[in-house]
Amino acid sequence: MAKIAIVGATGAVGIELVKCCHARKAVFGDAPPALFASARSAGKVLEGPYGPLTISEFTLEAVQGKFDYVFLAVSGSFSEQFAPSLASSGCWVIDNSSAFRYHDTVPLVVPEINFSAIKAIGGKLIANPNCTTAIAAMALWPIHQAHGGIKRMIVSTYQASSGAGEPGMQELLEGSKSQLLDGKAPVNKVFSHPLPFNCIPMIDKLQGNGYTKEEMKVAWETRKIFGDDGIKLSCTAVRIPTLRAHAEAITLETAGEITPASVLECLRGKPGVAVKDDPGNDVYPMPLSCSGEDDVQVGRIRQSEVFGDRGVDLFVCGDQLLRGAALNAVLIAEKLEGDK
Amino acid sequence: MAKIAIVGATGAVGIELVKCCHARKAVFGDAPPALFASARSAGKVLEGPYGPLTISEFTLEAVQGKFDYVFLAVSGSFSEQFAPSLASSGCWVIDNSSAFRYHDTVPLVVPEINFSAIKAIGGKLIANPNCTTAIAAMALWPIHQAHGGIKRMIVSTYQASSGAGEPGMQELLEGSKSQLLDGKAPVNKVFSHPLPFNCIPMIDKLQGNGYTKEEMKVAWETRKIFGDDGIKLSCTAVRIPTLRAHAEAITLETAGEITPASVLECLRGKPGVAVKDDPGNDVYPMPLSCSGEDDVQVGRIRQSEVFGDRGVDLFVCGDQLLRGAALNAVLIAEKLEGDK
Repeated sequence: MAKIAIVGATGAVGIELVKCCHARKAVFGDAPPALFASARSAGKVLEGPYGPLTISEFTLEAVQGKFDYVFLAVSGSFSEQFAPSLASSGCWVIDNSSAFRYHDTVPLVVPEINFSAIKAIGGKLIANPNCTTAIAAMALWPIHQAHGGIKRMIVSTYQASSGAGEPGMQELLEGSKSQLLDGKAPVNKVFSHPLPFNCIPMIDKLQGNGYTKEEMKVAWETRKIFGDDGIKLSCTAVRIPTLRAHAEAITLETAGEITPASVLECLRGKPGVAVKDDPGNDVYPMPLSCSGEDDVQVGRIRQSEVFGDRGVDLFVCGDQLLRGAALNAVLIAEKLEGDK
Repeated sequence: MAKIAIVGATGAVGIELVKCCHARKAVFGDAPPALFASARSAGKVLEGPYGPLTISEFTLEAVQGKFDYVFLAVSGSFSEQFAPSLASSGCWVIDNSSAFRYHDTVPLVVPEINFSAIKAIGGKLIANPNCTTAIAAMALWPIHQAHGGIKRMIVSTYQASSGAGEPGMQELLEGSKSQLLDGKAPVNKVFSHPLPFNCIPMIDKLQGNGYTKEEMKVAWETRKIFGDDGIKLSCTAVRIPTLRAHAEAITLETAGEITPASVLECLRGKPGVAVKDDPGNDVYPMPLSCSGEDDVQVGRIRQSEVFGDRGVDLFVCGDQLLRGAALNAVLIAEKLEGDK
């Protein structure tokens, strides 16, 4: 039976981590994970699939060496401070922050794609990818493998408020209500501008090259996960008024020839991927149908008007809190557990 | 003093046409336009900037030969039936539908770009472009001219509910309310799926090549307006839960070298274009700041990670009912009036 700790258990990702562990009781055992958070949340009781669980205050002493798997759903600075000590104490540490994703000595893992990076790089600290990257990667990896590699990609995102956690989702819901009912301008604290009935083409900090960190994460992380530094990628990351699923319009160019049929062929039966591609019958990926679902949906697959027989356009959508965060992390632990 | 008729005056675009005419009283004169609609709306009184105006039932006899400018804000099939007769009766007919946009004998006009096409092609029937196309074209034409021409473009849209007219906006508002207040699933009749807290990656009919007509319109119309059949363009058109401004993420490749600085330089002072490009201070184009504004906003201008020194990424946003429809049409008439 695996001993599991979830640090940051009160957040949107933390809550999904509890659910994802419970769904894998057959692998991890019946005992609930131990939940940790800041002193502020200590003593709080979280209702979930295991019944009520009490949150403990996180201290290094309370966790290090005591668990098989520690999931960190905390800030980058928190992870920076504690993750290395936890990993060197013998726990597998799966960190959802961006703190270690770009360290050469830390594997960045989507388990269906590059689980082998864990053994190859060594150590017990594993980085969980950015949500937008992880969702797209599920659809793109089979395409990358089957068509001589993706050479260029243009990604435009339609990102949900959950990317800013529970406070982001609440701000969207409360703001929408106050605008619709009281005709008041929505208040914004989490987002730089009001999100209800708006979209905000800027997520995360501005970088020197004019892209945001969110946009560059998609480039940096796709290259690292695919093990291919040659992929050129431009991204525009846009927040839209949805709750918990990210969508992405992707145009890509491959080294080899590619057709919608060859894309469908390579995606067939791939775990974690659901093809939703019957636009004539109004079937395509959408936040509404992806929310709460494990699989990444792929559709609107068509020959690119720009890259011709070396390109396709497609649309992907996935639950940001699941494949984009909690599920991916738990699947890493599940695979490690199976590897024992 | 110009005699103006607005056909389809009760719709979202019709209402904006009235406002746009009123804002140009100095050009068109003080008299209000005559408003026409179907028999169902005849006798209805429309409140607007001219005060109350009564809607008359449209008949060919009531309109042909009696006006200088006839704005058609009606369905494509209605336009197909009546526009040619109206134009041959001596009225300038400016049609907002897609019925005649791809006819070689009908100019498709953004007045700041290709007003000269009206004289070059001849006739009195003028097509007003698709909203997504018209908004992007305002920003792209100066770039096209200053950089040896745009060779390739990838466009991902963030389109407002107003693209489906007043019923689309109402469906979004009512659905959002029922979801937020009563926890009920929103009803959808206008859109193929509920739009509140969702996005729908399909607008208009599916074409043989897997693109929707909305997506292909952007390619067909950009080529026609720019007079350049060589532009390769892939578009993904997505409906998002906003009210009346369309946004677009655009990656483009030019024949000549291009930089963010050269883009800013060529956009400076261009009528109808407002540069909003200071992301470090949270300034970028957004539906919230574009709604009700005449100018198309352009920002997030950065060197493309995919096309290098021949490419840029940018984000544009414009009021769908104004530059995307009513304003563009009225500016055509204004320019014709000035040309007299």
